[in-house]
Amino acid sequence: MTKDVPHFSVKDPDYEARGRRSFANQTLMTTLGAALGDVQPGHVEIVMPFAPQILQQHGFVHAGAISAIVDTACGFAAMTLMPKGAGVLTTEFKINLMSPAKGERFIAVGRVIRPGNKLIITLGECFAETDGKRKLIALMTASMMVMDTPGIVD
Amino acid sequence: MTKDVPHFSVKDPDYEARGRRSFANQTLMTTLGAALGDVQPGHVEIVMPFAPQILQQHGFVHAGAISAIVDTACGFAAMTLMPKGAGVLTTEFKINLMSPAKGERFIAVGRVIRPGNKLIITLGECFAETDGKRKLIALMTASMMVMDTPGIVD
Amino acid sequence: MTKDVPHFSVKDPDYEARGRRSFANQTLMTTLGAALGDVQPGHVEIVMPFAPQILQQHGFVHAGAISAIVDTACGFAAMTLMPKGAGVLTTEFKINLMSPAKGERFIAVGRVIRPGNKLIITLGECFAETDGKRKLIALMTASMMVMDTPGIVD
Amino acid sequence: MTKDVPHFSVKDPDYEARGRRSFANQTLMTTLGAALGDVQPGHVEIVMPFAPQILQQHGFVHAGAISAIVDTACGFAAMTLMPKGAGVLTTEFKINLMSPAKGERFIAVGRVIRPGNKLIITLGECFAETDGKRKLIALMTASMMVMDTPGIVD
Repeated sequence: MTKDVPHFSVKDPDYEARGRRSFANQTLMTTLGAALGDVQPGHVEIVMPFAPQILQQHGFVHAGAISAIVDTACGFAAMTLMPKGAGVLTTEFKINLMSPAKGERFIAVGRVIRPGNKLIITLGECFAETDGKRKLIALMTASMMVMDTPGIVD
Repeated sequence: MTKDVPHFSVKDPDYEARGRRSFANQTLMTTLGAALGDVQPGHVEIVMPFAPQILQQHGFVHAGAISAIVDTACGFAAMTLMPKGAGVLTTEFKINLMSPAKGERFIAVGRVIRPGNKLIITLGECFAETDGKRKLIALMTASMMVMDTPGIVD
Repeated sequence: MTKDVPHFSVKDPDYEARGRRSFANQTLMTTLGAALGDVQPGHVEIVMPFAPQILQQHGFVHAGAISAIVDTACGFAAMTLMPKGAGVLTTEFKINLMSPAKGERFIAVGRVIRPGNKLIITLGECFAETDGKRKLIALMTASMMVMDTPGIVD
Repeated sequence: MTKDVPHFSVKDPDYEARGRRSFANQTLMTTLGAALGDVQPGHVEIVMPFAPQILQQHGFVHAGAISAIVDTACGFAAMTLMPKGAGVLTTEFKINLMSPAKGERFIAVGRVIRPGNKLIITLGECFAETDGKRKLIALMTASMMVMDTPGIVD
């Protein structure tokens, strides 16, 4: 898949600061050791190092931890395109886990494919990085519902 | 969906102890505060109390934590039907998140729908429990690949 | 999965006639030889006999034909619960194809799992029938968006 | 998504002729009016013109017809990488339907993302074309199982 970022128009110029505040409030991300990386309109990256507390029984990173960061990257990619005060809720996602999650760190990339008014469709990928080389290990598609009720969001 | 459990034939009578040992080795489950509940052939439950370290930005339990316990319940449901020495790997899952994850605790139920030789197809549900009442908040379908290489499993 | 039908409240008592008119306008269903069966609130069945014009290269019924009838059963199950004038649009579905589609006829069953105001979540199954015996061959989850713009629907 | 085709190594140099023979045996494709377009290693296109016999109740092309051509494009993309005599079976797919299927013709593109020995993971897209302009209307991820039993395939 391509690396170039489509040029989406943003409705809230403060989208990055808003996203970073919101991410900081996701305690699960802290628990998993995940950090927000690059944030651009319709494109968000999250980085999670290998850590002993997020594994499955074979010593690989648990599919649940991988899914959590890819889903979050997709949700925040959607959030970058939303107006101030609007929130986002994952209504569904599907993930194909293509290789065991072994590596030094894991980079989740979420991208907006279609920015609808009610639903934003996103594509997510997860790369395992070892010695600076990246391998695609998971592929996600996810639907994000736009929640326009101020107050319950941010 | 029905509560009655189909009668699958087990290939390893030690399936429950094997599952419990394997679950204890999933450090992510410990990190999330999740515990293995009922274990029957083709049917496994996992319970996770609400906890401050597993939330998203609105104070609900993160979809990633919910997905992790439902995926794990499905994987262990598949594992109950497998021969000694065989392992299980999620190749894909899809989850519909139908309501925000609020409640005192969350019960993930994984059930085998089709026990194939190469792929085991499972259906997962997650219920939010408050004051003893359960509400279905998530629905999953997942494919589990049977890994017959001894050594990399259990 | 259970056979008993949950009791949903209907907003349009004319739901069955409305559904049958709408189904008759789906030319793909006619092309596939599919017919609407049982229609109840939140529960719809579609029957499609084996036919030479709907096959894949091995002589089984094509996964696309199976998907089409299960998706349609899910969409019409959602439609039974909607007010007069509202329409339904599939926003996504996922199907696990568990066995090759061989049999005399195929019965798709769509059921509403969660009747939301914006999205209706459904579960679909497909059974292959031979000599009166049914085998579950496919499992679907699907999201139906409620379209409240009169005119473009029905 | 990118237009450039990754360079996969083929195991059967006759992959294109084999694919075209197999496609010709899919009677559903003929019934839908679909034709095989570009065939390259890990990349297959299928074209289906708008036609009155493949519609849903609002006059758009039925989601089932769209799903059928995208699933088929993914399956044939997988088949290009397989050895002579091996077959392919869709075990699951998920499709996000992002816009109503209106247009003069529909182009399904299937691409291999990960060519495993047991499972081949693919990404599918469908474009609606009107006046020479293409709009992405659907996004699929699909798992293809490699069937190495000679005889039941091709």
